[in-house]
Amino acid sequence: MSDKMIYFFEQGKADGRTDMKQLLGGKGANLAEMANVGLPVPPGFTITTEMCRQYLRNNGQWPDGLEDALDENLAHLEEVTGRELGGRENPLLVSVRSGGAVSMPGMMDTILNLGLNDDAVAGLAEESGDERFAWDCYRRFIQMFGNVAMFIPHGDFDDILHEEREKAGVQYDSQLNAEQLKEIVADFKAIYKKDTGEEFPTDPKDQLRRAIDAVFGSWNNPQAVRYREIHEIRGLLGTAVNVQTMVFGNMGHTSFTGVGFTRNPATGENKLYGEYLINAQGEDVVAGIRTPKDINDLPEEDLSEFPDNSIEPEEANKLYSGLYDQLVEVKHTLEEHYRDMQDFEFTAQEGHLYMLQTRTGKRTAVAAVRIAVEMTEEDLIEKAAAVRRVDPNQLEQLLHKHFDADAESDALESGRCLAEGLPASPGAAVGKIALTADDAEEMAAAEASKDEPAGIILVREETSPEDIGGMDASMGILTARGGMTSHAAVVARGMGKCCVAGCSAVMPDEESKKVVIGGKEFAEGDVISLDGTTGQVFDGAIPMVDPEMSGAFGTLMEWAEEYRDLGVWANADTPDDAERALEFGAEGIGLCRTEHMFFEEGRIAYVRQMMLTAPDVRRIEARLRDAEIAKTQASGENLRRIEKEIEKVGAELAETRKLFDSALEKLLPEQREDFEGIFRVMDGLPVVVRLLDPPLHEFLPHDREVQKRLAQQMGMDVERIAGRVNELRELNPMLGHRGCRLGITYPDIYNMQVRAIMEAAANCQKEGVDVRPEIMIPLIGTDEELRICRQEAEQVCRDVLEEAGVQVDYKIGTMIEVPRAALIADKVARYADFFSFGTNDLTQMTFGFSRDDVGVFVPEYVEREILVNDPFQALDQEGVGQLVAMGVEKGRQTKPDLKVGICGEHGGEPRSVEFCYRVGLNYVSCSPFRVPVARLAAAQAAIGAGEAD
Amino acid sequence: MSDKMIYFFEQGKADGRTDMKQLLGGKGANLAEMANVGLPVPPGFTITTEMCRQYLRNNGQWPDGLEDALDENLAHLEEVTGRELGGRENPLLVSVRSGGAVSMPGMMDTILNLGLNDDAVAGLAEESGDERFAWDCYRRFIQMFGNVAMFIPHGDFDDILHEEREKAGVQYDSQLNAEQLKEIVADFKAIYKKDTGEEFPTDPKDQLRRAIDAVFGSWNNPQAVRYREIHEIRGLLGTAVNVQTMVFGNMGHTSFTGVGFTRNPATGENKLYGEYLINAQGEDVVAGIRTPKDINDLPEEDLSEFPDNSIEPEEANKLYSGLYDQLVEVKHTLEEHYRDMQDFEFTAQEGHLYMLQTRTGKRTAVAAVRIAVEMTEEDLIEKAAAVRRVDPNQLEQLLHKHFDADAESDALESGRCLAEGLPASPGAAVGKIALTADDAEEMAAAEASKDEPAGIILVREETSPEDIGGMDASMGILTARGGMTSHAAVVARGMGKCCVAGCSAVMPDEESKKVVIGGKEFAEGDVISLDGTTGQVFDGAIPMVDPEMSGAFGTLMEWAEEYRDLGVWANADTPDDAERALEFGAEGIGLCRTEHMFFEEGRIAYVRQMMLTAPDVRRIEARLRDAEIAKTQASGENLRRIEKEIEKVGAELAETRKLFDSALEKLLPEQREDFEGIFRVMDGLPVVVRLLDPPLHEFLPHDREVQKRLAQQMGMDVERIAGRVNELRELNPMLGHRGCRLGITYPDIYNMQVRAIMEAAANCQKEGVDVRPEIMIPLIGTDEELRICRQEAEQVCRDVLEEAGVQVDYKIGTMIEVPRAALIADKVARYADFFSFGTNDLTQMTFGFSRDDVGVFVPEYVEREILVNDPFQALDQEGVGQLVAMGVEKGRQTKPDLKVGICGEHGGEPRSVEFCYRVGLNYVSCSPFRVPVARLAAAQAAIGAGEAD
Repeated sequence: MSDKMIYFFEQGKADGRTDMKQLLGGKGANLAEMANVGLPVPPGFTITTEMCRQYLRNNGQWPDGLEDALDENLAHLEEVTGRELGGRENPLLVSVRSGGAVSMPGMMDTILNLGLNDDAVAGLAEESGDERFAWDCYRRFIQMFGNVAMFIPHGDFDDILHEEREKAGVQYDSQLNAEQLKEIVADFKAIYKKDTGEEFPTDPKDQLRRAIDAVFGSWNNPQAVRYREIHEIRGLLGTAVNVQTMVFGNMGHTSFTGVGFTRNPATGENKLYGEYLINAQGEDVVAGIRTPKDINDLPEEDLSEFPDNSIEPEEANKLYSGLYDQLVEVKHTLEEHYRDMQDFEFTAQEGHLYMLQTRTGKRTAVAAVRIAVEMTEEDLIEKAAAVRRVDPNQLEQLLHKHFDADAESDALESGRCLAEGLPASPGAAVGKIALTADDAEEMAAAEASKDEPAGIILVREETSPEDIGGMDASMGILTARGGMTSHAAVVARGMGKCCVAGCSAVMPDEESKKVVIGGKEFAEGDVISLDGTTGQVFDGAIPMVDPEMSGAFGTLMEWAEEYRDLGVWANADTPDDAERALEFGAEGIGLCRTEHMFFEEGRIAYVRQMMLTAPDVRRIEARLRDAEIAKTQASGENLRRIEKEIEKVGAELAETRKLFDSALEKLLPEQREDFEGIFRVMDGLPVVVRLLDPPLHEFLPHDREVQKRLAQQMGMDVERIAGRVNELRELNPMLGHRGCRLGITYPDIYNMQVRAIMEAAANCQKEGVDVRPEIMIPLIGTDEELRICRQEAEQVCRDVLEEAGVQVDYKIGTMIEVPRAALIADKVARYADFFSFGTNDLTQMTFGFSRDDVGVFVPEYVEREILVNDPFQALDQEGVGQLVAMGVEKGRQTKPDLKVGICGEHGGEPRSVEFCYRVGLNYVSCSPFRVPVARLAAAQAAIGAGEAD
Repeated sequence: MSDKMIYFFEQGKADGRTDMKQLLGGKGANLAEMANVGLPVPPGFTITTEMCRQYLRNNGQWPDGLEDALDENLAHLEEVTGRELGGRENPLLVSVRSGGAVSMPGMMDTILNLGLNDDAVAGLAEESGDERFAWDCYRRFIQMFGNVAMFIPHGDFDDILHEEREKAGVQYDSQLNAEQLKEIVADFKAIYKKDTGEEFPTDPKDQLRRAIDAVFGSWNNPQAVRYREIHEIRGLLGTAVNVQTMVFGNMGHTSFTGVGFTRNPATGENKLYGEYLINAQGEDVVAGIRTPKDINDLPEEDLSEFPDNSIEPEEANKLYSGLYDQLVEVKHTLEEHYRDMQDFEFTAQEGHLYMLQTRTGKRTAVAAVRIAVEMTEEDLIEKAAAVRRVDPNQLEQLLHKHFDADAESDALESGRCLAEGLPASPGAAVGKIALTADDAEEMAAAEASKDEPAGIILVREETSPEDIGGMDASMGILTARGGMTSHAAVVARGMGKCCVAGCSAVMPDEESKKVVIGGKEFAEGDVISLDGTTGQVFDGAIPMVDPEMSGAFGTLMEWAEEYRDLGVWANADTPDDAERALEFGAEGIGLCRTEHMFFEEGRIAYVRQMMLTAPDVRRIEARLRDAEIAKTQASGENLRRIEKEIEKVGAELAETRKLFDSALEKLLPEQREDFEGIFRVMDGLPVVVRLLDPPLHEFLPHDREVQKRLAQQMGMDVERIAGRVNELRELNPMLGHRGCRLGITYPDIYNMQVRAIMEAAANCQKEGVDVRPEIMIPLIGTDEELRICRQEAEQVCRDVLEEAGVQVDYKIGTMIEVPRAALIADKVARYADFFSFGTNDLTQMTFGFSRDDVGVFVPEYVEREILVNDPFQALDQEGVGQLVAMGVEKGRQTKPDLKVGICGEHGGEPRSVEFCYRVGLNYVSCSPFRVPVARLAAAQAAIGAGEAD
């Protein structure tokens, strides 16, 4: 790494480049790049992220030499601009901004107009000929410096502004005059002294040093840490500091400021997109305090809003049209240069356009796909680049439901549309209103435990970084204020959540837990619906329907298929799931859980009967066996007693066995039908059915009433039922009597399931369906378990096929989910036609983490980087992955062609998919909605591997 | 393996050898060996175990060629003996016995006198000139053949004998005359026909074939399977079948039969030991039906018991003295040849001695040690052989308590000795009476859950194979009938349990659940005491004391030390435990669990206070942090609200923190004292202290009353306490918030513990004690956890030592018990001064077995050989062992000198110790009582490894 501490840039020339993001931050690297390609960038310099790292390591000491480098660059900046920092004439004012390698909207630590003091403000007033402007700059500077560098609450300053506006009888700050602003400055300085105990610093170098400290320090502020956590941003050095000559969007009505995107970040449409505010500084746009105008309306700007402006309409029209054309030119320059959709910040100062920032634009999934496809069609990028450009995680957004069009128009006609805001992040959401982020998190947690959890919609005046947790917990976000680039909008798009922003008809009241929307009062918990694509807010729930898989999405997925060579299967338990999986491109069912079907109405009672009688049958059989052994050694009275005992136990066994068998008989046809349905859907494709996995106890009734009904059904005493339920309770059910352990102890249950699978297969085969059943034995820890289960299952398969008189190709394999199975995979493979890694359980056992219990510390572990990721979300490649790699290698030592897949939830997580590709798995299996994600991730892995070759 | 199916033997010459046990079984191999060394063995042949294996595999079909080989050997036997099977003159009678490679007292499948039918019995009568004898042989044959080969209950035959004795007015079967025996034979044949539906087979070849089938089949009879399971006998082919010419111990009063040991199997004394019965067949001795006489009384046998005998006292004396001298000669021949203590069966037929069997004799631990040491001193074996000869598992018997001598003599004086039986297996036992094996198992299980579990004493008329489970569950066994070689005695010695046998003053009644002992009635559950060394039975409990570690035991352990190079440490939580560990030769404390100390009276309340407040402190701190973040962004009314909130939360935090801190302050000095006590005992030796490991929930009160008292102590609402207890409940606590995860979340708790350890160390150091504290962080799964915990702990250590102004060498290391830790041991080692494998948890997680829950299937798994051993008893070398080996290797990649030990319970299990030696561990740590076991096992491992070199 270079020793250079500070990188200078000016239009046409810069020390840095766009590929130096790690060192200069995204903002700094792109300012340098824009300067290099000749865009109008105000000159300035960037202090490296390495300086930040050293600063934080040294507990806030500046690295040796940084002071000198700063002086040097400052001198150069004064030379280039012909201005002097703190100078009474031509004072140099600068902005100081943070800028990490990755953009973090959580870090709003920007200070503008630095360099002002009582002398310089006079100089600025003289130079600009506008005293009001100079004092407005001054009060903004004090306010930002106070808040960002000295942690004085926003509110302390806002209150003063508010009072002053009331006193003056005006609506906007821009309507305050110079005298009023002078008073405000005095009040601000007083607040500063009161809150910090010291005078406002008048030495601009001192101001600059403190501002740099503040930016460095902000790297570890809790919002930033939280944002990095949620977005899984790691491995960065720190933030860079960008010091740049100020330009003023608030220097009257030929000045403005705004943000733009080279294409529409919501839809992907290839058209300049953005917003601007006349006579304002950048923070006014981003903070969403005034609602800005559409950038495409700039040529028509007539300033009628500002009756006191000094420009003729014709002149304005010419000026604004010219500036708009320049922006369109900038759009093309940026895209030609970056080959991607960019966002950018700009300011016009007295009719001159300046570029303040650019970066790769955040976009919705829809936009990402459309932009990738269209840029390929425009020959801006290659097909492989298009495939790699879309974040697979984002795809899922496209696959979820949106409002049923008829239902939505009915709702509109019947007046259920309450209000319309900005369509800030597309998609639809239906949910219960939460009025604070905390409430949203609590309500979401409470819903999560319900059978049919309702979504949450967070309704806020506006959102701020501390709301991130609540936004994450919600399905949709509705704000009363703020534009398309407000905090709520940016964050919601990043999270792929539906958002309606700036909807002024929304009036939330946290205190009373009520919100008025379009004049109607709602309480927290009431249900509303949001359409993030139209911005409409509806009363009550609107039915949602599935999305279509066509257009740009279809094209992108087709292209992905050209690269992908890792199979993508789906986890599906029902014919409906299987159909969805097929629609999304699944090539098989990698996990069909039989137990989910057990809970269905009408069969759960027999499942329970089976489970309650199974241990009894086993126990009584053992007693009978013992008695028969005793009999061979007994004599006299003892013998008579034993014979009586045998008779009694025999009768008891017959009775219990009858209950057990009759439950199996009830369940067999039900299970058979389940499988028939799935086999028909998956005609020609493999279906991996996992035999019973969870502990029996999970199915048993703990409710007294249900126990009573069951007792009646079974003709058994309810106390005995309750007793059995209690006996089957386990201290650590995750590590208890489950999976193949049940199959070994109660072979009849597995045999019934295998019979159901094979009878279904035989029936479908006869119908002409091409069935490919694969029977999967879960929780294998020893090769002997699999040998026994396989032997039993094979016998049943042979019997069924012989009875049916058909041939069906079937496979019998196992899950590798117990660490020991991976360790002895060479032996396990002897009895397995395939392996499927159950990485959920494998993660639990390899870490010793119970997924149900570690919620109290795993989030903290991730926050403190004890864990790189939540290992239940992204596969732990270092630990669990080692066992996966070992399992694959050892399994193939025994059977070189062993088919190996993964069916844990990691199968749909892009980084984990890449890992699976790398260790040579044949396929990944994931939930239907993740199938396109996995397909894209697999294509990207193949492209990546190709590059590495 | 040889293709030879049958091995012949006769005195002076045999096909087999003693080292062919796998193929010929122990009995067959030793018959061949005895024949080879010229001992008087009746001729016969052995069918190999391989034949049994093939027979069982072929579902009861004889292997090709076996029939021919049998005919050939039978012809040879007829030639050698000059007799004919089934011949009317000189009929050849044979015994048919099973014989596996390992002796199994569970398999009593012996058939004597085979070859008899209505013709041959006449021939036998003629030849022997004793019709009574011939018919007694015949009835015994039918009885044994019926029971063993045809599974006719014993009782069916016994009932007939009983009736006939009553009718004849005699006490013993031997008093029945020929006519009565003929009637009995007729009745037996009738029973045979009734029970089997066919006539008793008259063709001797047919009898032989069926008998061989029965022996083969008995390999898989449930008792035998159960015995192999309990004794962990595996990998055998099956049983051999020994067919041997009959000799008769029941051919009048110059005939007898008996069993002997070359040395005393209970004490090890170097003197012939054994029993004999005049005019009896072998099964009469083993089955314990008549109480036999001491072999050393043989020279004085005067036959006065048998007034109808035909020998003069003088003649008898000469005869019996001569036979005794022959037996003493046999003792020396056997020991010179086998170089070990042997047991043997013998029969004298009309004054001629025959050897029927020999094998290495089972012995008590005391005897094993004494014999090993004395044989070395007698130059019979080498020192290394002596060390290897003693089963380390047996040693533990020697270390347990025996009766306090004074208390025992007081009990004798005060008449508490109820009765005296045979001292069948040494040691002492105090416990509750159980009258059936089932009761014993149930009562033991019930006791196991109590704080101070009482032992169980199984009291039976006599024991049989189906009692094995109950015997295993008991501390001691008391029987009314049977001698030193009865089932009870043999099995109890094998199990290392105290046993008093043949105590005729004991009259148990299973029905009424009462037993009369020495005239006093006891109910099941009443407490008695047994002295297995004297045979005395006492009313009530007699206090027990610790054994001494001297004599032969001391010598053997000294010799072991000459070979051992693996360290042996102990797991000890208290100074008392530590002292015992030192006595037993421990070289350090490998695991001192701090949490056991938490349960002590007077401190548990503060432990609970600490644990209940810890999560609150954390939660309130988070709220305060959030509020402070919110404050920097807030304004107006909102700001006021937040400030009020901060004030409120701050006060709440202070209050909760006070409760938490005060609990820590109470606990610190208590813990410090604990450690001081242990450090003083372990002066100069390392003490590894593990920081808090179990989930908090384990310590919390679930009882309402205790919750109320705690609420009072803490000045907190009881509902809140109950709520917190409930919140801390976990679904799978084994995989929950415990170990270092607690240390990360609540650093104050670990810091208190580290402070207590180091303050104790500093204090002891000042006293002149050489302290070597090693702080062990449990449940590490990521290197980062250890880095953080280590950093915190080091800071506390430095602080304490600085405060105290002393230098203490301390280490900080970790347990490797989470599979992931073994997988990334190279990284974990960066922050560890030592590793200690926690193989209990490692086994749980590697197998996915919750030790608390798998009791419902693991025994079945072991029985069905799905698991070779219970992995919680013997380390699973294949799976868990792979992780241990990996952990050692990877750890030492990072730190070549890394000290590595094991502190799971496997550290005291001999095979596991051998494994630990093999993978290069520095030490094993186990419970104090297992320390000598581990020391001996470690010595054996070193000797074994030396041999391999």
